[in-house]
Amino acid sequence: MRATVIHAPGDIRVEDVPDPVVQLPTDAVVRVLRACICGSDLWPYRGEGTTGAGRRIGHEFLGVVEETGAGVSGFAAGDLVVAPFAWSDGVCALCREGVHTSCAEGGIWGQPGSDGGQGEAVRVPHADGTLVKLPADAASDDRLLTALLALSDVMGTGHHAALGAGVRPGATVAVVGDGAVGLCGVLAARRLGAERIIALGRHQARTDIARRFGATDVVAERGDAAVEAVRELTGGQGAHCVIEAVGTEQSMHTSLRIARDGGAVGYVGVPHGSATGIDLGLMFGRNIALRGGVAPARAYLPELLPDVLDGTIDPSPVFDLTVGLEDIAQGYKEMDARTALKVLVTV
Amino acid sequence: MRATVIHAPGDIRVEDVPDPVVQLPTDAVVRVLRACICGSDLWPYRGEGTTGAGRRIGHEFLGVVEETGAGVSGFAAGDLVVAPFAWSDGVCALCREGVHTSCAEGGIWGQPGSDGGQGEAVRVPHADGTLVKLPADAASDDRLLTALLALSDVMGTGHHAALGAGVRPGATVAVVGDGAVGLCGVLAARRLGAERIIALGRHQARTDIARRFGATDVVAERGDAAVEAVRELTGGQGAHCVIEAVGTEQSMHTSLRIARDGGAVGYVGVPHGSATGIDLGLMFGRNIALRGGVAPARAYLPELLPDVLDGTIDPSPVFDLTVGLEDIAQGYKEMDARTALKVLVTV
Repeated sequence: MRATVIHAPGDIRVEDVPDPVVQLPTDAVVRVLRACICGSDLWPYRGEGTTGAGRRIGHEFLGVVEETGAGVSGFAAGDLVVAPFAWSDGVCALCREGVHTSCAEGGIWGQPGSDGGQGEAVRVPHADGTLVKLPADAASDDRLLTALLALSDVMGTGHHAALGAGVRPGATVAVVGDGAVGLCGVLAARRLGAERIIALGRHQARTDIARRFGATDVVAERGDAAVEAVRELTGGQGAHCVIEAVGTEQSMHTSLRIARDGGAVGYVGVPHGSATGIDLGLMFGRNIALRGGVAPARAYLPELLPDVLDGTIDPSPVFDLTVGLEDIAQGYKEMDARTALKVLVTV
Repeated sequence: MRATVIHAPGDIRVEDVPDPVVQLPTDAVVRVLRACICGSDLWPYRGEGTTGAGRRIGHEFLGVVEETGAGVSGFAAGDLVVAPFAWSDGVCALCREGVHTSCAEGGIWGQPGSDGGQGEAVRVPHADGTLVKLPADAASDDRLLTALLALSDVMGTGHHAALGAGVRPGATVAVVGDGAVGLCGVLAARRLGAERIIALGRHQARTDIARRFGATDVVAERGDAAVEAVRELTGGQGAHCVIEAVGTEQSMHTSLRIARDGGAVGYVGVPHGSATGIDLGLMFGRNIALRGGVAPARAYLPELLPDVLDGTIDPSPVFDLTVGLEDIAQGYKEMDARTALKVLVTV
């Protein structure tokens, strides 16, 4: 089959790789219909962190079950399914506590020894604990299928950030980061009842989506000016809840400073670099909590799926470019250049 | 009147100072019955941070209202009251949200321009928002009066840490720090329904109090060995909730490492030094929240007071030495030498 492989920074290729097969009774093989490119796929593409020579890549996909191991009881060939970006057994104590990303049996698609999501098929370990079934008729609804794909990562991650930030009915929320995750954070905040949502971003196309997703205000400034603008919009007090969806020192620093005393920063931007942007003295004196991390997307699927199916939330607009699998290198190029927000890959 | 003044590191004196008077209609003057020495009073005593020449000191006290301004409606001369360690107006948005320590009208006893708690009387700004009335007959109950004094800081701070750590019925809690706040954290965790409470400490007299307060396990190790010991006690997983009641880089580092994935560190140890001990990468990958700060002790008084009055909780054992006001320098000496855990000052 064909799958995406990263060989070196900037060197993305679609290659012939062995077809996945059921190796363990708990495995399933899923034929991929849709995959996408994540902001975090750009790090190895840009040479940040380790690339690994000839590593498979991509961790978001949905598709059709092709084969199941003898121990898989919840799925059968032909089922339409979505996979969260990490597999997990679904039965251990940590999975039961909702921290599926900490499952000792788990992993993230594309890690050594696993299939990446950007390919024609994926061997899914712990299929019963990992996959979530979708209604069969969704397969013929192009818009819906795209929206459902967002549940594999960005929508669940935005929701995780909103929960970390403590979003509740009536709250004022600020969202730092206008990437797909930040935008899904806006959508999640509105879904959780936020009264006011301030999106920080300077790219009109993205802030337009933010407004469509529920942002009531847009702040184009950065750094000190952004802090001042948010304080001005909030009577000098800052936002009860801040969603940090970037992961740089600067974004964390801004997030903590625009939070209201007693509030919280929900952070899902993977920390970059050695410095953290965390000012513990500020957090202490003002009682600002920091809560987040890698999103247990699997935990949120049962809650978010019905809302996507019935149209209560529609994250599909975060995908603004579609490429075929063979053209995925072009998709990386456009996301890297920020000419695309998030790239959908049809397989 | 007589009051405690710190002139330089190690130089604590009891001196004649002007009697406090009502200056604003919202003021009250409280004649102090009991005060105490806080771990944080030891910092200027040890030369950490600024001392200020001739600065009044002490931020915990209870006593009897002597005089009230014309705008004070909730108190009258003769009322027995306890004061939280910070005054606040009680009516602003932040006070209403429970973050009384962020009140723009607030302050901490002993700060420039205010009276310290370690003296014969205190001018209390915003008396209606700050003070909490106690039953008159408590004045004749020595043990109870001491327990009630703990509500001015250490008990509320321990409770704040337990809330920050997310303590809930059935949880496993670890408490880093065997000072008075850490011990009150044990008591707060038990009160909130923790099933297992692991106290980290190596001073027998203190861990004995921890056990009396509800600790089910004591870990005497430090650093890596402490992390290993807590992991061993928790089936390798760590504690759902960690109370950090020290404030050093080492204690924060230990706290994060003994937290269970998906758990939280509730921190109330005032951050010391420039380094924070925070490993954001660890927090991110394991979804460990950090929540705490300076405790809004006033916010917790209405909830904790009834439990102290009816004996549900009794924090009085954290006071293990009593001195008269004139002998307070001896109390500082003993707390500094750790021969006393917490010093009660009778006035």
